[in-house]
Amino acid sequence: MAYEMAWLHYHKISEKDFLKFLTAIHVEYEDSIIQSAAEEITSAVRDMFGIYLPYEKGESREGILLKLSKKDELGKEGYHIYPSGKAFVIEANSSSGILYGAFQMIRLLQCGYRAENMEEIKVPDNPLRMINHWDNMDGSIERGYSGKSFFFQDNEIIVDKRIKDYARLAASVGINGVVLNNVNVKNHATELISKKYFKQLKEIQRIFASYGIKLYLSLNFATPIELGNLNSADPLSTEVKNWWKDKLNEVYQELPGFGGFLIKADSEGRPGPFTYGRTHADGANMLAETIEPYGGIIIWRCFVYNCEQDWRDKKTDRARAGYDHFKPLDGTFAGNVILQIKNGPMDFQVREPVSPLFGGMKQTNQMLEVQIAQEYTGQQRHVCYLIPMFKEVLNFRTYCENNRDKVSDIVSGKTYGWTNCGMAAVANTGDDDNWFGHDLAAANFYGFGRLSFDTGLSSEKIAGEWIAMTFGTHPKVQKNIRDILMISWPAYENYTSPLGIGWMVNPHSHYGPNVDGYEYDRWGTYHRADHFGLGVDRSTKGTGYAAQYHNPNALNYETVENCPEELLLFFHYVKYTHRLTNGKTLIQHIYDAHFEGVEEVEVMLKMWIELIDYIEDSVYQRVLKRLEYQLEHSKEWRDIICSYFYRKSAIPDDKNREIF
Amino acid sequence: MAYEMAWLHYHKISEKDFLKFLTAIHVEYEDSIIQSAAEEITSAVRDMFGIYLPYEKGESREGILLKLSKKDELGKEGYHIYPSGKAFVIEANSSSGILYGAFQMIRLLQCGYRAENMEEIKVPDNPLRMINHWDNMDGSIERGYSGKSFFFQDNEIIVDKRIKDYARLAASVGINGVVLNNVNVKNHATELISKKYFKQLKEIQRIFASYGIKLYLSLNFATPIELGNLNSADPLSTEVKNWWKDKLNEVYQELPGFGGFLIKADSEGRPGPFTYGRTHADGANMLAETIEPYGGIIIWRCFVYNCEQDWRDKKTDRARAGYDHFKPLDGTFAGNVILQIKNGPMDFQVREPVSPLFGGMKQTNQMLEVQIAQEYTGQQRHVCYLIPMFKEVLNFRTYCENNRDKVSDIVSGKTYGWTNCGMAAVANTGDDDNWFGHDLAAANFYGFGRLSFDTGLSSEKIAGEWIAMTFGTHPKVQKNIRDILMISWPAYENYTSPLGIGWMVNPHSHYGPNVDGYEYDRWGTYHRADHFGLGVDRSTKGTGYAAQYHNPNALNYETVENCPEELLLFFHYVKYTHRLTNGKTLIQHIYDAHFEGVEEVEVMLKMWIELIDYIEDSVYQRVLKRLEYQLEHSKEWRDIICSYFYRKSAIPDDKNREIF
Repeated sequence: MAYEMAWLHYHKISEKDFLKFLTAIHVEYEDSIIQSAAEEITSAVRDMFGIYLPYEKGESREGILLKLSKKDELGKEGYHIYPSGKAFVIEANSSSGILYGAFQMIRLLQCGYRAENMEEIKVPDNPLRMINHWDNMDGSIERGYSGKSFFFQDNEIIVDKRIKDYARLAASVGINGVVLNNVNVKNHATELISKKYFKQLKEIQRIFASYGIKLYLSLNFATPIELGNLNSADPLSTEVKNWWKDKLNEVYQELPGFGGFLIKADSEGRPGPFTYGRTHADGANMLAETIEPYGGIIIWRCFVYNCEQDWRDKKTDRARAGYDHFKPLDGTFAGNVILQIKNGPMDFQVREPVSPLFGGMKQTNQMLEVQIAQEYTGQQRHVCYLIPMFKEVLNFRTYCENNRDKVSDIVSGKTYGWTNCGMAAVANTGDDDNWFGHDLAAANFYGFGRLSFDTGLSSEKIAGEWIAMTFGTHPKVQKNIRDILMISWPAYENYTSPLGIGWMVNPHSHYGPNVDGYEYDRWGTYHRADHFGLGVDRSTKGTGYAAQYHNPNALNYETVENCPEELLLFFHYVKYTHRLTNGKTLIQHIYDAHFEGVEEVEVMLKMWIELIDYIEDSVYQRVLKRLEYQLEHSKEWRDIICSYFYRKSAIPDDKNREIF
Repeated sequence: MAYEMAWLHYHKISEKDFLKFLTAIHVEYEDSIIQSAAEEITSAVRDMFGIYLPYEKGESREGILLKLSKKDELGKEGYHIYPSGKAFVIEANSSSGILYGAFQMIRLLQCGYRAENMEEIKVPDNPLRMINHWDNMDGSIERGYSGKSFFFQDNEIIVDKRIKDYARLAASVGINGVVLNNVNVKNHATELISKKYFKQLKEIQRIFASYGIKLYLSLNFATPIELGNLNSADPLSTEVKNWWKDKLNEVYQELPGFGGFLIKADSEGRPGPFTYGRTHADGANMLAETIEPYGGIIIWRCFVYNCEQDWRDKKTDRARAGYDHFKPLDGTFAGNVILQIKNGPMDFQVREPVSPLFGGMKQTNQMLEVQIAQEYTGQQRHVCYLIPMFKEVLNFRTYCENNRDKVSDIVSGKTYGWTNCGMAAVANTGDDDNWFGHDLAAANFYGFGRLSFDTGLSSEKIAGEWIAMTFGTHPKVQKNIRDILMISWPAYENYTSPLGIGWMVNPHSHYGPNVDGYEYDRWGTYHRADHFGLGVDRSTKGTGYAAQYHNPNALNYETVENCPEELLLFFHYVKYTHRLTNGKTLIQHIYDAHFEGVEEVEVMLKMWIELIDYIEDSVYQRVLKRLEYQLEHSKEWRDIICSYFYRKSAIPDDKNREIF
């Protein structure tokens, strides 16, 4: 095997009380998903206990029972697992539920649970739990930091064993939808919905389906022109509508059960309804109406802004763009359209406020888009465990209603009763042996899946599970790696861009540090640092962005005094001499945070080195190398940021550390 | 014809007194170069006068006579042209001299001279007058801004009509050597000296030779490893020497008359003698000894520096590197080795001091390398007529001797009696219809050739010639275009990086503005701007670079008071409040120069627009578009540089102009 199996590589366990169930797997009903569940259990039991478990059809009161039931409290995909006499029962209303229950049983075993503590009922919180791959058909991956695509190569689709193993990894953490190709759909990718590729897509769909995963594709809005030779893609044109009708008929003939499309339209140069003077709703609804008879959905991205801004223009504000574009359309989208909204209004920075579209639109299905590819958070060369960030987003109170107003309530459908909603993550996988470039980056894929399934899980709990599955349950291993993970996001924030200002990276590559990298550019991303201070005034005296929130958020963001300090520079231009709540000046905070960030990486490295005897050597060395690199690169960040602000402000460091 | 012929596209002229010579061309001796000369005259006379000139062998006293003579004062390549009764004589000691005389006769006619004023004796000042192409074998051109290579495509050599037309353009301005391929020799280019490519090289060499041009190639120092499968390229290894001996024997069997090699060794990642603990002299001399029996030369580049510098390190100075590396080797190089030295110690910035290697080494053949590709001077999207810059370099007094101490004296061989020396320019050509991307960029190719032939020509005189050849002699055309050209370099300097500090461009692309683009990078290129001032201290209190010059240059550069102001920030860290000789503060100079630079571009654009009725429309429009672009982009430079320094210094503009 040319690649490893991450958290599905099982460790031997010595839990004796579970042995009593290991007589056989009993299956009352059989389909490809249940077969997968049985297979997963069989191989896990073999690896964990060294026991080969026979597989039997029909009822039983002993062994591991996979049992379809009809219990309202288990919903569509929920499960109930429990020991019952000589049996361990995995019960659900659907095959998918059974598969998730099976993976949960395995997980609990790997985490060292005794059978008596293994009863659990869980219905997934989010209806849609998706991975968005930005894989290009030439095999490259946009913002990919762990090798090439394992879906595409030389404009062909790859169908090999790795597809199934990918499905296993995804399903094991509850993923039920995968978008195969990059949202920037060009050239060959436009042809994915043509004869040329149906055969292989069918095969991938079959493999995905046996793990409860629906296949989705990213769509080029201009397909009628590029593929259909029409001279328009106007969503209100009958010719265009008919073209799509025929096309979708063809797609569903070939790919019954196909999930639907993800669309980036009128964004960063991609075509869209604006070309024809139509709205996003016109564009999305036309496709939604056409796909509706097949049960498909249209996921429409809200990442729309002016990427030709003049840096001299201080009135235009990229942060405002999503809300300004989409809020007026609330209530006009079809029921099978979902707006997919990035967690923040900018673009996956280490710290952003939550997008005001959450809770801003009340009559439109929404989905939260996060990025586990660490585009702006170390590109999988730095450890940056993002689950705590996602937790903050999910727990953000929008005040759109009096209760159930958190982002997690909204995107899970609880607030407004939606069923087409959920969470999506931009993938961090590639064809590297370890799938994720950095071994510790696996925690973000694992964690995203688990969190989207169960938004109540804590970051520490998820980390603990993942460590147990990946490295085992030794207390030192658990503690040190959990500490490394939990330190990593705050540390990255400390040694990179301060207090929500973001960017400070190189254009295009998005790797830093480069303080002025985006300062005089056209992308709407400015820090406005001068001799006296820095930050962007987004209060009503500035761009007015803060007012896009409900109160009290809007009121809090409006003033320097009430603004959450971690977002201070996102919302306000602040002088270097301004005192923060801890009594430090802003400039001293910048210096201190950057030195602290590096010290935190030193701690992370030290904690990893302590694990030398507990981690398989090749993995130990791989991670060690990256942590050593991270330490050096965090110093580069520290020194450049500190030098930049020292040279600009001329205010020396209180502690007299070396600044260049 | 898919391309134009630049200054070899002749205009009709009405000069009656020359008609009397237009009876025939008489040739006493015939070879391929003289045939070229006759051909050039025939076609020029046809275009200019509408007369077809018969070609006759043998002596005559009428018509245009091409005459080989033996006169010491004409040297190897000089010519004497003069009217003599019913004959116009072009006399020289060599066929090349006759060719140059023929082109000069044509030039004078195009410039509107009467026959009686056309007597001229000129021996070229520089023995070697070379063009260095940085063309890659895949067809790309490193720092190419006018299309693809016309020498290479898809790793093959192109031999077509354009090769001859290129040779005509080059020979018409006196070029006698061309390096075909990029100094960064990799992959296929390493194989240029193998069977694979000899046939086409032979053909190119034949075409070049008929225009008096020798063919040279850039060489990969590691060729014995990459091509010969040796495991070393150690210049002192007998095996390596023998390999080269065989290889050069093969090369000269196939390409008799081949000029020699240009080598970039131990520079920016290219292999070289350092790998084996040998010196540059060891490396160059081994090749020189091997090529000597064939009359070839080895041109060794001095562009050697540490490109892995830590930006925090203020002691290491890239400017010092060339001198530090090569000065100690003075006197150790073979007679057929030439050191090729960039005009400045950095890398073709808009303003640099002259390299201290000129006059620093007295016993080593030297050649001046300039760049007509406008890598750092607008990339042929901006007009930047570089001949005035080259003139300043040539006229720079090194004080290496009491007289004949100028760079022009040194590289022409006058100071130390060298014969292997001269000038080389990095090419600005490509396969664009007009060869140079920007029509006005042609003046740099033309001007370089003319200047290397006759270093006494003024920039204005060269501009006037080129304008006459290209656009005609109308006074308004002459005046406006000459003014545009003469303003262009100072304007570019004004609106880009101030007072010799250089850089402020984007890494890799080298296009600006990006003030901090190279500030925190590894390339040894820093401005050190802070709240109080900017510049690099290269006095003896700083990096000591200034001391690499002879006095009084060293003494002048040493102090802020005596340093030539245009180089102030190259040699000194200076406060924004420092008063310049014109009474302005440094910061006010920065603001003013940047606003003035833009105003100068406005003037350039205005002067061009005045020519609408005098310039062929397609050319007029092409240049108009680029000048309009230049105006916009000069504003971008102005606003970013001014904003950067205003934000840093907090010192407002005296004139209250808008700074962002």
